[in-house]
Amino acid sequence: MSETRDVPGAPDRPERLGQLASYLLNRIIHRYNQTLQGELKQKGVTTITMRTVVSLKIYGELTVNELCVHAIAEQPTMSRTLDKMEGEGLIAREISDKDQRVRVIRLTDVGHEFYDRIWPVMTDANEALLKEVSPEDRAHLMRILMQILGNIRQNPF
Amino acid sequence: MSETRDVPGAPDRPERLGQLASYLLNRIIHRYNQTLQGELKQKGVTTITMRTVVSLKIYGELTVNELCVHAIAEQPTMSRTLDKMEGEGLIAREISDKDQRVRVIRLTDVGHEFYDRIWPVMTDANEALLKEVSPEDRAHLMRILMQILGNIRQNPF
Repeated sequence: MSETRDVPGAPDRPERLGQLASYLLNRIIHRYNQTLQGELKQKGVTTITMRTVVSLKIYGELTVNELCVHAIAEQPTMSRTLDKMEGEGLIAREISDKDQRVRVIRLTDVGHEFYDRIWPVMTDANEALLKEVSPEDRAHLMRILMQILGNIRQNPF
Repeated sequence: MSETRDVPGAPDRPERLGQLASYLLNRIIHRYNQTLQGELKQKGVTTITMRTVVSLKIYGELTVNELCVHAIAEQPTMSRTLDKMEGEGLIAREISDKDQRVRVIRLTDVGHEFYDRIWPVMTDANEALLKEVSPEDRAHLMRILMQILGNIRQNPF
């Protein structure tokens, strides 16, 4: 008799797609992104602009390469987005405090105000995602997701 | 003093992006899809073809609408994919066993063989995702992800 493997998340022969981790993750994030994109569109904001503003708010300053990773964007798209955001007065390109040779992006005062308007949309969207998930389960989920990201990320952050 | 909310996954003011559920989910699934796409490309297979074959293997027969949901594709893309797959002899369009009025898609024998070749790629990719995540944590993760999908899905399956 051949050995059968019954690993949650990566089963040898799934009976339902809900037993496959990548399927659930893809379904969830596709729906999340579609819904969020719709809400942002009403405010005239793109997903990549939102991700850029949130990343800069949290980290203070980031290089273009770091922004590509956090905002999940290719460099040409990110460069065009940053040009547009600079034109709108949301960001400034400056010399890094930490290393004079490095150019970084920072939020302007207008960018910080923009974050204050956009952030509740993100919080509400994440809250809708996690509705009725208990605080213990949320903490557990975040710990496992961090472990998974550690397994597959190609960037050290 | 204003009340501060510290909800894991949807915090009021995250100190790191790793505290935001949607950020971790997006980073993980983007990297997963990029890696899997690269491996499938070497075999001349697209992501949507793989998802279609796996969905049909598990469910036996599905309508085009059901396939769109499971394979996360818009209807025009799915229709083109199904035309191509029918031309390659992987699928057949038939009358549903359950309802004579409904047209469904099924795998042919060639399609079943194709699944046998493609499935290990999926299992390995999911295994890489969940590397060193304990069986208990995997089971817990799958349960929480099912709950989250239940929160946000627009389709009943």
